Amino acid sequence: MIIAIYGMGLIGGSIGRTIVKNTKHYVIACDIDPSSMLKAKMLGAYHEEIDDNNISRADLVIIAVNPYQTLNLLEELPAKLKRGAVITDTCGVKRTIVSKMEELKKIYPEVEFLGVHPMAGREFSGIAHSTTSLFEKAYFIITPVHTGIEALVKVKNLFKEIGCEGVVTASADYHDKVIAYTSQLAHIVSSSYVKSPMSKEHHGFSAGSFKDLTRVAKLNPNMWTQLFMSNKDYLLEEISQLIEHLSEYKEAISGENFQELERLLSEGVKRKEYADKLAKEKISE
Amino acid sequence: MIIAIYGMGLIGGSIGRTIVKNTKHYVIACDIDPSSMLKAKMLGAYHEEIDDNNISRADLVIIAVNPYQTLNLLEELPAKLKRGAVITDTCGVKRTIVSKMEELKKIYPEVEFLGVHPMAGREFSGIAHSTTSLFEKAYFIITPVHTGIEALVKVKNLFKEIGCEGVVTASADYHDKVIAYTSQLAHIVSSSYVKSPMSKEHHGFSAGSFKDLTRVAKLNPNMWTQLFMSNKDYLLEEISQLIEHLSEYKEAISGENFQELERLLSEGVKRKEYADKLAKEKISE
Repeated sequence: MIIAIYGMGLIGGSIGRTIVKNTKHYVIACDIDPSSMLKAKMLGAYHEEIDDNNISRADLVIIAVNPYQTLNLLEELPAKLKRGAVITDTCGVKRTIVSKMEELKKIYPEVEFLGVHPMAGREFSGIAHSTTSLFEKAYFIITPVHTGIEALVKVKNLFKEIGCEGVVTASADYHDKVIAYTSQLAHIVSSSYVKSPMSKEHHGFSAGSFKDLTRVAKLNPNMWTQLFMSNKDYLLEEISQLIEHLSEYKEAISGENFQELERLLSEGVKRKEYADKLAKEKISE
Repeated sequence: MIIAIYGMGLIGGSIGRTIVKNTKHYVIACDIDPSSMLKAKMLGAYHEEIDDNNISRADLVIIAVNPYQTLNLLEELPAKLKRGAVITDTCGVKRTIVSKMEELKKIYPEVEFLGVHPMAGREFSGIAHSTTSLFEKAYFIITPVHTGIEALVKVKNLFKEIGCEGVVTASADYHDKVIAYTSQLAHIVSSSYVKSPMSKEHHGFSAGSFKDLTRVAKLNPNMWTQLFMSNKDYLLEEISQLIEHLSEYKEAISGENFQELERLLSEGVKRKEYADKLAKEKISE
């Protein structure tokens, strides 16, 4: 099929390169930055640039740009596509995107819409850091918008073809609630954690904790600002909750309440074991 | 030389096994738990049990038990040792330990004292999880107590013989200040992070952030309670600071202050890059 990719950044570029390398699909692409297009061309991330002619023949469109730009692109696109074409995106938030898709679906019932969030990324952004192994063993989350079964299968198959291991179907609301915790809060914590004046002294003083806790601090500030603002309510809930939990430890330590501190730590061990156990069960299902 | 190890847990057991496997030193050991001694014997972590006779011939004593038990053991040991013997420990806090060593040095000037903190560990404790590769590429920190050069070299060589890559010499105070951040705060954050009700939903919703942020939540509650309480002042400072930083992000998000949020995130990126750059420079020195 003809696959159009908007945005030749880390995600769009990696999707393009992997499709070109491992499948028979034909990739057309574009990016507002000409130098990204040039690099993408050299890295073999697409076959042809998108124009008014070829976009009308695309079977599947993947929008891989920042959340706010995605909303803008979504407005323009459906009018250019053929009947039955599928529009999807790769944003890390889904409520804003999917509700826009729902609006558009009413206007363009002949176009299929589907939200996708591939659970893959790196601490670097841009086409220069794209790889053809980014999606290996990754999960991807889909949030359907009254999507027909054929379109669903088309997208699922493509993500599996480029290496994804499993798919999770979720409502946009559930997606955003869980992602606020598993991914967004982690980025906020890493970014906060690295701000201690002690961060520059870390070398030789850690067996990995510092590295783990600060890995994702090296994020793309503009994109993550958009992601955080698009998920404000759930994210604020998680930050507040984490601050409350940290305060419990702080209080137990400052009050030298040994029993309470040991209880708090034991509870943490149990929660971690429970979370890991559920994940294992899901994998073996 | 004859090396005595008190405590056949994860650290003591791994040290014993690695010495027995990779060196010609003779290891004598003990543990208050007979079943740990039996497992340690089966895993080849020592040659002979410590008794009143052989301990008097030990060249080096490594105390690898919890901080409070270490303080107790330190009281008993010097009287049993020969002239020039070295007493060291493996605790994750150094001020309490080293100040006790300093007291004892005045009473037993013929014994050498030296604090050690091998930067190696696992999310599991006990001899059953010991390995002979635990110290590979690890750093270890030493905090001398008017230690003679011969004793210093003896200990450094041993830790290099069992696989350690580098040694950092630090005052107990500096050690505790940096460790409060690089290791202890990471454990508090992991333990707090995993407490969100969303932790049980994480499967399929992360590309690794959840795993990174919660890896060390699976700690040994009793030992870490002792470590945290022994480093109360510096740890409280770090927790308070992290809560302040988290609150800045929270405020920017709740006030929809895009510019401020992007500034906070950019500052995090710079701090992370700076910390990593300094670490690389130290390695290449």
